Order: sequence, then structure tokens, then C-alpha cells
Amino acid sequence: MITSVANPTIKRLRALRQRKAREESGLCLVEGIRLVAEAAQCGAGVERLLVAPALLTSPFARDLVAAQAAAGTPVLEVSPEVFASLAQKEDPQGLAAVVQRRFADLADLPRDRRPGPVALLEPADPGNLGTIIRTADAVGAAGVIILGPGVDPYDPTALRASMGAVFALPLVRASWEEFAAWKRATGLPLIGTSDKAPTSFQAVVYPQPAVLLMGSEREGLAPAHQALCDLMVAIPMRGRSDSLNLAVATGVMLYELLRQCDADGGALPHPPTG
Amino acid sequence: MITSVANPTIKRLRALRQRKAREESGLCLVEGIRLVAEAAQCGAGVERLLVAPALLTSPFARDLVAAQAAAGTPVLEVSPEVFASLAQKEDPQGLAAVVQRRFADLADLPRDRRPGPVALLEPADPGNLGTIIRTADAVGAAGVIILGPGVDPYDPTALRASMGAVFALPLVRASWEEFAAWKRATGLPLIGTSDKAPTSFQAVVYPQPAVLLMGSEREGLAPAHQALCDLMVAIPMRGRSDSLNLAVATGVMLYELLRQCDADGGALPHPPTG
Repeated sequence: MITSVANPTIKRLRALRQRKAREESGLCLVEGIRLVAEAAQCGAGVERLLVAPALLTSPFARDLVAAQAAAGTPVLEVSPEVFASLAQKEDPQGLAAVVQRRFADLADLPRDRRPGPVALLEPADPGNLGTIIRTADAVGAAGVIILGPGVDPYDPTALRASMGAVFALPLVRASWEEFAAWKRATGLPLIGTSDKAPTSFQAVVYPQPAVLLMGSEREGLAPAHQALCDLMVAIPMRGRSDSLNLAVATGVMLYELLRQCDADGGALPHPPTG
Repeated sequence: MITSVANPTIKRLRALRQRKAREESGLCLVEGIRLVAEAAQCGAGVERLLVAPALLTSPFARDLVAAQAAAGTPVLEVSPEVFASLAQKEDPQGLAAVVQRRFADLADLPRDRRPGPVALLEPADPGNLGTIIRTADAVGAAGVIILGPGVDPYDPTALRASMGAVFALPLVRASWEEFAAWKRATGLPLIGTSDKAPTSFQAVVYPQPAVLLMGSEREGLAPAHQALCDLMVAIPMRGRSDSLNLAVATGVMLYELLRQCDADGGALPHPPTG
């Protein structure tokens, strides 16, 4: 059992809080029982478990560790102090995992899934990114595409906000140019949002599957981005606010797309409204 | 100009980061140009401005300070060090305000506004609460009701997430019992959400105005809460996730209510989809 916070392995794992170390190693640190369980159940590349036996009281978590160990995953035991030095949660549960960061290629995205993938232009807030990945998973979207220098979906805050959905659906990183070339090659319709668009998002029948493109928190979509879109829609605003939180705006758009999929013969056992 | 971080006034203002000091004083500390401008424009009770002239380079912000000072608002000048000791932003803009925390009564909520108010049962995350207030303002909802021991909408994180919308629409705090009595007295329909409800939220024609009731992040709505609802609906889930972020779920619900208001003869210049 490792009892020194200065242990070189512990130092290396602690460094995974920083993006640079994650990019260099291709790994991330996943903390907490729920997230580790999601990673394991989704078949994410769990390289190693970190366990503080003194903290790990949950029988579910102990069974999870035993099953992973039996399947050959190395288990590193550490003292509560060492675990706390790695943990970002205030009340650490004593379970973490070192997991491979996986990114898919644009070409790997399922082409017939409805709703189609969500593309995010340079998302800046890891909490928003994780929440959007969680919502994309909830509606059964084809994946999440991060365009340009956005935040890392394997950032600890993004992981937590995703509730483990980062392990459940394809994540793609691409430049704007790669994305534009892929969109033209596949012919997938692209839907953009802007508060200047003349049409409400709720007044359009969408071609589906389509790609939903959301601008960054601060900048939205520039004219060059809008020019690639087949359709620009606005989310109506009735109050003082002139914009929505990015994760809320994306959620509202995704559920409108899902509503229309269902209305069009989807899985829901009820007729559409309206 | 105050140059000591140990100045008693500064200490008192710094304490406003803590809920206890906010509850005792009835005040909150609002930081940043945009939030202070929103407070001023909404006619919130701005008691005092805090300015670090060396940091405050924005002409818009300087005009705002001059206008407030001309209208009689006291302006306290502080050094950049003192300002930084109060600020939570990493790159402080040199403008903050001491503002009254205002809460309305249930009886003050506009009764004919559509969408009606959103009621949140013991919200635990200040970022979610602020984001929901921002969205409620965006759809023009009648107000936000915080039920039971929820987080403070005047918490710095909630204020920031609201983008100033806390000053734009009525906020009410009430116990569950007060809320239930008010609901029965007014006869307003109550709409609740649960993943166990048999009907999708998109398959219902809502009576409006209605009150939207959202459960807490962890617990959702208990049977006793659901029993008060006239209508329980589910937000469909297609992926691994068995729940949405609370602010996303509330946003999705509010935009469905808004869609039906508009479809029913509202302000949008387009027919409803579907």
C-alpha cells in the first residue's frame, strides 16, 4: 500500500488533473464510484484502479473492484491521505481509475442515428461540455464533436458533469476545416443557432439525421460558420436575457429534434402534440 | 480610498460571500460590470458601489459609475489589492456593488403570465439555480419559487450563472406547506416531472398558466410531492443516462410550455410544428 503523497506514481496520477499530462499520456483520472462504474460498464479502457480500502465502504464498489481485479485490471492500494491528495471531491469515496482517453474519427460516427451528432465550436466551460455530453447521451444522439481548441471532455469537471456519459458515446475532435470537408462529403444537413435567425427552432421541420452546430459560450457562430449551415434557427427570448446557457440551449434543441424523430415514427408510444 | 484589506468595511463586505452574512444583513455582493449593470438597470436596491479605479478601464463601466453616483449611490474607492481580496473572478474588472437581497411573496406572483412560475424543490447547486433563473427569465416566466432549504439565489455562483436575471424576475422562498396551500387557494395547475411518469412531456397539451415543479438534483419528487401535481410527465431518455442535469431538464420543460403558449396565439410569427 502506498502511504506517501510524494510517491512518483502518485505524483504522475495527480498530474492528470492537468490537461498537458492528460494529452501526453493519453490517460485521465476518473474519480468516484458512479463514474468508475460507468467507465467499467461501458468498456472504456480502464488501465488501473486506485483504491483506499479504509474509505471504500460501499459493498457495490467493493464488488466492482473485485470483479475488475478478477478480470486482470491492476489495483493500486493507497492510504486515505494519499487518496485525498488525488481527489477533487470533498468527501472522497476511496475509488478512482486511470482510464484511456478515447476519441473517434468523424468517419466513425454512425450515419443513420437520429438525432445526429452535436458539434460544439470551441466550448470553453468544462461543466457545460460534460452536461452537453450527458444530454446527447440521454436523447440517443450519434456523438459529440468538439471543433477547434475547446476544453477537454476528460477534464475532471467535464467528467463529473457528464455523469459518465463521456464513456457512452463517440467523442470526436476536429478542426473546423476537417468538419466542413466531412459535412460536404457526407451531405449531412447542418443546423445552426443564432439569436439573429428569423425563424424559431420550434417552427421548423428538420431534415434528420442532421448535425446540430452550437457556437461557443462567448462568441456564438461567426458568419463563416453560419455560411456552412443549411438551416439557421433562433431560440426565442421573452425576457431581459439575450442568451441562454450553452448546455440549456443545446438541450432544448436536442429535445426538439428528438420530438420530431418520435413524431415521425419513433419509439415513443404516444402521438405528438400540436 | 481604502488600501487595507483588513479595513472593517472591507471585512464586512468580504463576509457577504458567506450565506450567513447575507441572511443577517439582507445584502449581497455583486461582482463584475455586466452583473452590476443588470442590477442597476433592473432597479435592484443598489446600496453602494465598490470601485477600483486602477482596474476599471471600461468606458461603459465608468459611465455607469458616474450615473449611479449622480443619482446618489455612495461609491467606495478601493485599491486593486483590496478589490482582489473581495473578488471571486480571476481577472477582476474593478466594479462591484452591494445590493439588497429581495424576495417576493407567493401572493405577489403575476397570476396570468404564461409560462407560469417555476418551483424548485430544495435545489442544491447554486450554478443550476442561477442557470434556471436565467432560463425562466428568457422564456418570460412569472417567477422562480425556491421550496424548502435550497441554495441562495444571491450566492456568488448563482448570481453569475443567472447573468443578472435574479434582478429581473420575482424570486420567492416558501416552505412546501405554504406552497401547497397557495396552489390549492389559487387553483393553478401543477405540472411535475418524473422518469417514472407514463406520459412524455411532449405528448401533453398543458393547461396554462401552470406552475412547473422540478425536484431536487438528487431526490427528484417524492410521492407526497407528486400527489399535489395535477399532471406528471417524463422527459424521455434514450441512452445510458437515466437523468438530465436539473437546469437542462427545466429548460427543456420551459421551452415546451413556451412553444404551446405561442402555438395557442402567442407572439411568435409562425405556426407550430407537428
